[in-house]
Amino acid sequence: MIGLSSYAAVMESLTSCAEEQQPSSFMTNSWSKNQESSGSQRPKCVGGFVLVHAGAGYHSESKAKEYKHVCKRACQRAVDQLRAGALAVEAVTAALVELEDSPFTNAGMGSNLNLSGEIECDASIMDGKSLHFGAVGAIGGIKNPVLVANCLLNEAQKGKLSAGRIPPCFLVGRGAHDWAVSHGIPPCPSEKMATRFSLSAYKRNKRKMELAEGMDAGLKQTKKRRQSSENENGSGCLDTVGAVVVDLEGNVAAAVSSGGLAMKHPGRVGQAAHYGCGCWAENACNMNPYSTAVSTSGCGEHLIRTVLARECSAAMQSEDAHQALLEAMQNKFISSPFLASEDRVLGGVIVLRCCRCVETQPSPNIQGILVEFLWSHTTESMCVGYMSAQDSKAKTHISRLPPGTVPGQSLAIEGGVCRLKGVVD
Amino acid sequence: MIGLSSYAAVMESLTSCAEEQQPSSFMTNSWSKNQESSGSQRPKCVGGFVLVHAGAGYHSESKAKEYKHVCKRACQRAVDQLRAGALAVEAVTAALVELEDSPFTNAGMGSNLNLSGEIECDASIMDGKSLHFGAVGAIGGIKNPVLVANCLLNEAQKGKLSAGRIPPCFLVGRGAHDWAVSHGIPPCPSEKMATRFSLSAYKRNKRKMELAEGMDAGLKQTKKRRQSSENENGSGCLDTVGAVVVDLEGNVAAAVSSGGLAMKHPGRVGQAAHYGCGCWAENACNMNPYSTAVSTSGCGEHLIRTVLARECSAAMQSEDAHQALLEAMQNKFISSPFLASEDRVLGGVIVLRCCRCVETQPSPNIQGILVEFLWSHTTESMCVGYMSAQDSKAKTHISRLPPGTVPGQSLAIEGGVCRLKGVVD
Repeated sequence: MIGLSSYAAVMESLTSCAEEQQPSSFMTNSWSKNQESSGSQRPKCVGGFVLVHAGAGYHSESKAKEYKHVCKRACQRAVDQLRAGALAVEAVTAALVELEDSPFTNAGMGSNLNLSGEIECDASIMDGKSLHFGAVGAIGGIKNPVLVANCLLNEAQKGKLSAGRIPPCFLVGRGAHDWAVSHGIPPCPSEKMATRFSLSAYKRNKRKMELAEGMDAGLKQTKKRRQSSENENGSGCLDTVGAVVVDLEGNVAAAVSSGGLAMKHPGRVGQAAHYGCGCWAENACNMNPYSTAVSTSGCGEHLIRTVLARECSAAMQSEDAHQALLEAMQNKFISSPFLASEDRVLGGVIVLRCCRCVETQPSPNIQGILVEFLWSHTTESMCVGYMSAQDSKAKTHISRLPPGTVPGQSLAIEGGVCRLKGVVD
Repeated sequence: MIGLSSYAAVMESLTSCAEEQQPSSFMTNSWSKNQESSGSQRPKCVGGFVLVHAGAGYHSESKAKEYKHVCKRACQRAVDQLRAGALAVEAVTAALVELEDSPFTNAGMGSNLNLSGEIECDASIMDGKSLHFGAVGAIGGIKNPVLVANCLLNEAQKGKLSAGRIPPCFLVGRGAHDWAVSHGIPPCPSEKMATRFSLSAYKRNKRKMELAEGMDAGLKQTKKRRQSSENENGSGCLDTVGAVVVDLEGNVAAAVSSGGLAMKHPGRVGQAAHYGCGCWAENACNMNPYSTAVSTSGCGEHLIRTVLARECSAAMQSEDAHQALLEAMQNKFISSPFLASEDRVLGGVIVLRCCRCVETQPSPNIQGILVEFLWSHTTESMCVGYMSAQDSKAKTHISRLPPGTVPGQSLAIEGGVCRLKGVVD
C-alpha cells in the first residue's frame, strides 16, 4: 500500500512542519529546549512527563484551536498530579478525565451517538508498574469511563474477592454501569452527556444513512451497494482520546477513552476497551531495557485486529525508536496481513519510551530519565499535546499528513526527546 | 514458580500416561496409528482434522464419561462437515455448537450463573484464511453464542455497511443479543439455558460466598479477608469449551465459548471474547511456514493478561512444536511477569499446526498435510477429543497433572501427529 515515495514524504513532514507550535525535531534540539524551559532547581522533585492526544482523524483549522486547548488542559492536569507526587497511573487518569469532559472530543461528554441515539463508551488503562489493566466497554450513563477502568485496575490489585473469586478486569454494558455506581462513581443521565454538537451529528448521519440505504434499495446486489458507499465515511469522527505518562520514579502508564464510531450498533466495543489494542504500558525489566507506553486512536476494528498498542510497545525495545515506530506502523498496521482486505487503514498512536541515564552536570551522582516521545498516524491529522513537570506550560500540535498523500495508505511520524532531571542518589 | 523438577514431572507425564484411551505419544507412533485407522481410498476427499476441548479445570472420574462423550460428538459434527467439503471455519462452528449444547459444559446451555443468577456468555471465532474475527461478550438469551460470533465474522467479510460504516467484530450485552436476533439467530429464554446442575451450583456458591463474607465481617482488614479466602476457589468450574480445525484445503480455524466464572459480576467479559486471548488461527504465509490454530480455557483474567492464544500461535512457528509449547506455557503463562502477583495461574490450551508435505507413496505427485496437535494445561485436568476425517470415530482423553504437582504452578503437555492424505495435484 505504501511505497518508498511515502517514506520520503514522511521524512519531509519531519523537517518541513510549519505549525505555530512546532514539535522539537527528533532526537536533537528537543532535549536542550525542554531543559531550558525548566526553571526548577529542586532535584528532589523532578516530576515526570505527559503526552496526550485528542484523536487521529481530521481536524479542520476552525476546530484546531479547541482541540489544542483541551490537550493543553489535559497536560496541565497530569502535571499538577505529577508535581504533587502522584504515580503515572493517577496522572494519566487525570489527563483522561479532562479529555473526556471536553464536548469537542469523542469520549465521555459529547461522545458519538450509536444507531439508537444513545452514548456507549469504551475506556481502558494500564499500569506499567504492576502490569494490571482495567477496561469498560459499551458503558452508558457514566461521565468519565476512565474512572471506572481505573477503579477496576485498583480493585484487581487488592487481590481476590470473597470465596476466592478472581476480580474482573473487563466489564461491559449495564453490568459495568452498576459496578461503577456501587464503587462510588456517580451516574450521569445520558441526555446530559449528549451535546448539541453530537445530537446534530447524529441527525446528519441518520439522514446520510437513510439516503445511502434508499439508493441501495435500487441496487439488487448487496456487494454493489456496499462498494458504492464505502468511500463516503470520512475519517472525521475518530477522535478517541488518550495519554501516556512517565512519573518521577520512572513508572509508565497509558490510557484511552472513546465514544466509538458514529452510528455504531448498540453493544459494539472498539479498541479502547480491548487489551493490547487501545493502550499499553510496561516498565523496564530484565528483558526490556526501556519502559514503554502507547495509546491508540482511529478505526477500532483495525486497531483490534492488529493489536497495535502492544505491537508498537514491543517495537520500542529496538535501538532507534523513530525507525522502529515507522516500521511498526508500516508493517504491523498499513501493510498488516490482518487488514489485507481493507482499502484504507486508519489510525494513530502516541508513544513514550524512557530509560534511566546518568547526568554529568551538575554532579555525576544524579540520575535522570531520558524520555523519547513520538506520534504517528495514517489519518489526515492528529492532535497532540505534551509537557514535562519542569515546563511552565504544555506544547500542542496538529500533525498532518504531507500534501498529496492518501489517508489510510501513508503515514506521518514526529516526536521529540526530553531529559527529566534526576534526584541525588 | 516452576523449577527444573517440574520439567521432569512434565516429561514423566508424557510417558507414564495410563488413560484407557491413551493419546499417541508425541511425534512418533501417532502418524502410523491415524494412517492405519483410515480406510478411505478417495484421494479427492481427504477431509481434515479436528481437536476439541471441554475445558481445563478439574474433571472427576464420575463426570469423565460425560465430558468424553460430548467431545466425541463434537469431533463427529466437525468431521461430518469436513467430509461434506466445509471450510475449517464452518467445521469449527459445528463442533462448538455441540459443545455448547451439552448441559455438562460451561458454555451455552448449562453455563455458570453470574452474581445475579443470570447466564451471560462469551464466545469468539477466528478464520485463519481471511484472518477475520468475530466475538460476543456477556450475551444473554442465546443458546449458541458461537453462532453469533460466526455471523459477525461472516458479515464483516462482506465489506462495509451503508454510509461507509465499518462492520463490528465485537458486540456485547443487550446490543449483541438484538443484533443476533435481527440476523436470524433465535432467542432462547434464559430459564431454559440454566440446568438443574447450574442452578444447584449457583445456590451452593451463593451460600459459600455468604459464609465467606459473614466470616469477613469479623475481620477488620480487607486485605486479611481476601487472603483468608483466596484458596477456597477450586479449579473445578473453568470448563470453557473450544476447538481447532484444519480443512482439506489446509485452512485452519479456531473457536472458544464460555459461560465465564461462576458468580462473576454481571457484564464481566473473559478471554473467550477477547481477541488473541480465547482463540487464534493463522494460515501459513510468506512469513510463517506453519498454519496454526489455538483455543484456550481457564481463568479468563489470566488468559487475557497473557494474550495466551496469540502467544502460543507465535511460538508454534519454531521447529520443535512440543518444546515451543512447553516454553510458551512456562515463560508466557506460569512465569509471565504479567501474572507475577498471582499465586496460581490456571489455564490450558489446545494447539494445531500444519504444513504441506509431499507423500512418496502411492505416488510422488500426492501432497498431504502434516498435522501436529497438542494440549497443555496447568489445571488439574483437561478433557480433549480429536479425530481426522479419515478416522471412523474420535479419540478422547482426560489429561491430568502428574501426581504430587501443584495446579497453577506445574503443567502437563501431550500431543500427537497425523498425516492427512493428499489429493493428486
